[in-house]
Amino acid sequence: MDKKLWEQYADWKQNYKFVDLTHELSPQTPHWHGFPEMEISRLFDYPVGFRTHQFQLVSQYGTHVDAPVHFIPDGRELQDLRVEEMILPLCVIDVSKQVAADADYTISLADIQAWEKEYGEIPEGCFFAARSDWSNREDINNYDAEGDRHYPGWSMEALQYIIETRKVAAIGHETSDTDSARNAKEKGFLCETYVLEKDIYQIELMNNLSEVPAVGSLIFCGFPKAKNASGFTARCIAICPKN
Amino acid sequence: MDKKLWEQYADWKQNYKFVDLTHELSPQTPHWHGFPEMEISRLFDYPVGFRTHQFQLVSQYGTHVDAPVHFIPDGRELQDLRVEEMILPLCVIDVSKQVAADADYTISLADIQAWEKEYGEIPEGCFFAARSDWSNREDINNYDAEGDRHYPGWSMEALQYIIETRKVAAIGHETSDTDSARNAKEKGFLCETYVLEKDIYQIELMNNLSEVPAVGSLIFCGFPKAKNASGFTARCIAICPKN
Repeated sequence: MDKKLWEQYADWKQNYKFVDLTHELSPQTPHWHGFPEMEISRLFDYPVGFRTHQFQLVSQYGTHVDAPVHFIPDGRELQDLRVEEMILPLCVIDVSKQVAADADYTISLADIQAWEKEYGEIPEGCFFAARSDWSNREDINNYDAEGDRHYPGWSMEALQYIIETRKVAAIGHETSDTDSARNAKEKGFLCETYVLEKDIYQIELMNNLSEVPAVGSLIFCGFPKAKNASGFTARCIAICPKN
Repeated sequence: MDKKLWEQYADWKQNYKFVDLTHELSPQTPHWHGFPEMEISRLFDYPVGFRTHQFQLVSQYGTHVDAPVHFIPDGRELQDLRVEEMILPLCVIDVSKQVAADADYTISLADIQAWEKEYGEIPEGCFFAARSDWSNREDINNYDAEGDRHYPGWSMEALQYIIETRKVAAIGHETSDTDSARNAKEKGFLCETYVLEKDIYQIELMNNLSEVPAVGSLIFCGFPKAKNASGFTARCIAICPKN
């Protein structure tokens, strides 16, 4: 009887921490500006024996997964993502200072290379997440006086490097889009299309990345195995060194 | 830089297996007979840039989590379950032979004690799951000529032992209820009420427990952090010794 995993788990409970990378899900949860508010209503309640709810919910509401088919016709749907892709080593790049100075900031190839200089080569098959601290904002859209939104994103060069050279298995960020709002408006969703065309998934509107060290953690991404779905609200948990 | 978790993960990829304990989620997914069918429709599609869906879904549809509030007023709601409760050592008891012989079978205290004699004491804080192979059935209700349903469940004595003496953190089974259909009809949902009153959660309509050994695995239960919810469709994944 192999109980090695249980020994590892006992060590985690003692010496590691569990971090919830997920926003609470409610009508008030951060979501892309174009979606209707989710609804939760009681379907049955105690007078008949037990309480159950009915949800009406968009596939990309709150902290969520995007399957490739979200942007790519014939891309993989949610049920096609394998459980081996849902438990991964986790790397976090911190661009919160840059974003605090410039809400239109895009993560550059130089940022990635500086990260590798400090923490070592990005391991193949990891989940690569960008911390921007955007998850702390109440107003995720950050409209200007002209009605344009301003929030950060990835650059194409950074994504090409981590996906094609380093072969990450998935990416994540705290905003509702892969592209910065300015780039999306000027050029379209080029970065989001690129990521999903490469047949990997992404988690958007992540939370609490500020509690996760740059290297050494694991991420569990749990979402329903929803047939033909383009995405779903997710639960992401990290197990992390305490530092 | 502590990379011990990454070393453990590399060992899992080589020497352990990942098992999806979840049914695919679609209108056809197994669900309690009294719930309306889920609906999935396209909200946006490629002509406007990307595909997103709208779901209408009951909180206990398909493989799902029940929070204590499902049966217990003032019980914990889904957002109250802590991430530390969602990654647990996994034990599996196999009662598939008994259930094949008797669809009304209830897991007895003697079954649990025989399991402990073979595999050792149930560890405190584990997830204790019952394999019945009911997940292989197309017809989960198994109606008889009189219109009564027949499917297996737990006995109160077995639950009291694993929850009060052994202090498990959660339980799971392959049916849509904790109680056998016959007991639920004759006495009400006594076992389900007991479990949720003890402030633990349960996963129902689990899948693929036949691929998980009795001891030595870990389970990850991922479900949205849905505010005020009584439950939600879940994704459960096991990491298991290959045997």
